[in-house]
Amino acid sequence: MSKSVFYHAGCPVCLSAEHDILNLLGPEKVEVVHFGSDKSRIAEAENAGVKSVPALVTPNGNVLHINFGASMADVKA
Amino acid sequence: MSKSVFYHAGCPVCLSAEHDILNLLGPEKVEVVHFGSDKSRIAEAENAGVKSVPALVTPNGNVLHINFGASMADVKA
Repeated sequence: MSKSVFYHAGCPVCLSAEHDILNLLGPEKVEVVHFGSDKSRIAEAENAGVKSVPALVTPNGNVLHINFGASMADVKA
Repeated sequence: MSKSVFYHAGCPVCLSAEHDILNLLGPEKVEVVHFGSDKSRIAEAENAGVKSVPALVTPNGNVLHINFGASMADVKA
């Protein structure tokens, strides 16, 4: 994959980070996944190593947890 | 300021994140500050709101703490 994937859950910390990441990387380089509207991607994120949101998974598969909005356990609750 | 500033302390988590951030944003858009070689910048980072490293301060002043390498207290110890 050539895009990064930004996973979030709509929390204020998430939205602030989303804004910053889209500004920094450029919206064309980031796929934004909101678990609130796309719960089917939760397993994919966990498999990638996402422990909390917001998180950015880079094209080479590294996970960057950015600040802290909610744990994945909270996201699934 | 038009560049982001990436603060770190040389820890493995820091170096991995540095690599990712430089790849994602482009090295020309990021100033890298290593506290190990530039302790004089610690106060500046704390004033910007950096609580732990690695952290990226965006051009608009937002702080993105990326994963967790060490607290600023550890950095100053």
